[in-house]
Amino acid sequence: MIYELYYWPEIQGRGEFVRLALEYAGAGYVDVARGEGKGQGIEALMRGLKDAHAQHLPFAPPFLKHGKIVVAQAAAILLYLGPRLGLVPEEEAGRLWIHQIQLTIADLVAEAHDTHHPIGVALYYKDQKPEALRRAEEFRETRMPKYFGWLEKLIARNDTKGGWLVGKSVTYADLSAFQVVAGLRYAFPRAAAASLRKTPKLRALAANVAELPTIEAYLASSRRIKFSVDGVFRHYPELDDPE
Amino acid sequence: MIYELYYWPEIQGRGEFVRLALEYAGAGYVDVARGEGKGQGIEALMRGLKDAHAQHLPFAPPFLKHGKIVVAQAAAILLYLGPRLGLVPEEEAGRLWIHQIQLTIADLVAEAHDTHHPIGVALYYKDQKPEALRRAEEFRETRMPKYFGWLEKLIARNDTKGGWLVGKSVTYADLSAFQVVAGLRYAFPRAAAASLRKTPKLRALAANVAELPTIEAYLASSRRIKFSVDGVFRHYPELDDPE
Repeated sequence: MIYELYYWPEIQGRGEFVRLALEYAGAGYVDVARGEGKGQGIEALMRGLKDAHAQHLPFAPPFLKHGKIVVAQAAAILLYLGPRLGLVPEEEAGRLWIHQIQLTIADLVAEAHDTHHPIGVALYYKDQKPEALRRAEEFRETRMPKYFGWLEKLIARNDTKGGWLVGKSVTYADLSAFQVVAGLRYAFPRAAAASLRKTPKLRALAANVAELPTIEAYLASSRRIKFSVDGVFRHYPELDDPE
Repeated sequence: MIYELYYWPEIQGRGEFVRLALEYAGAGYVDVARGEGKGQGIEALMRGLKDAHAQHLPFAPPFLKHGKIVVAQAAAILLYLGPRLGLVPEEEAGRLWIHQIQLTIADLVAEAHDTHHPIGVALYYKDQKPEALRRAEEFRETRMPKYFGWLEKLIARNDTKGGWLVGKSVTYADLSAFQVVAGLRYAFPRAAAASLRKTPKLRALAANVAELPTIEAYLASSRRIKFSVDGVFRHYPELDDPE
């Protein structure tokens, strides 16, 4: 049964964490709002958000439909997809650990978002720029290094020593770690590079994910939307480390 | 086997979502950092966060130990506890839906936190007060009503019509909805009251949770820490609606 992903069609955003899992596994899926067929396009996404009868109404995109299942929240979608796409181990303890890492990566993504929107999502960046300058400084100097350092420790302590976050195989947490590293490198090229110099294992993990054959093919395809200042990771040069 | 909750001893914070689940179910648990016995107290919490050998190292409190399991992130802890405490239904679809609601409540909690810390967690409130005034306004006028309105719809659309968010029994999402309503009533007494006037089902749910016998007993006990300006929900009068 095909997976239907509902997300904004022109940004990577939080939907990208789901796209990466589907792409890695070579799963059959439709990126509904980007489609042009019947029941596709942005209207289909908006209908899903405003469905007056839906029991499991999403609060926001992304959401996934799969048969009778409708699930929103990127981390919950990955919790659902993990076992189906072979992206988690069998035992509960391992799955819970991977989910916990994902939730922490989601916190990092939220903090990255708030560097350019510290005051409110309904306002433009230009209307909260002084606040953004302050928040970005704290993010670059304290928060990003703290999260990266934690991920580095996890890779170091994974007793299989294979370079992944959990166990000896790729999990959705590795794909998400790749994505957050890629996003922060785009948004804060200088600060992210400086932070990653201290976390060589995380840097290697990101490089290894990018070279997984299905991911490499995806990244080179038109399905991979480019980073932009409309997404969750935004490159505003003034928010990065000074030169 | 007893549950060991590790969280800051003097605030409700994000640990309270876990405490409520344990208290509702009458589970045997130790609130480790609040204990005075051997291996308890704040030092035990700090050791858990800095354990140089832990494979499943928490990024931040709260975390739960249960036998060999160590799990952090309030939502992941509840995912683990849900089936063990009888706080979720049997089927996967229902459990996933409850988890998705929990993650959305967690987003609301994070936004509530950022009203008093829009610039950075490492700074004092007084050092980000102008920014907090702006962010709180957006939160009161747009974000809190949006989240409350969504929860209201879920209660209305729950086809068992029992007044809970999912199905005909209390789940951890109901306990968490109660907590976020209680927290926002403390932090923003005028704005929360105004918003809740438009969401009578959510207001009723919160009242019904408070009257569950085990919860009522807990709220009246010394185990329930008082809200304060050290927690995630903070009452700074200037951040609430003007009189």
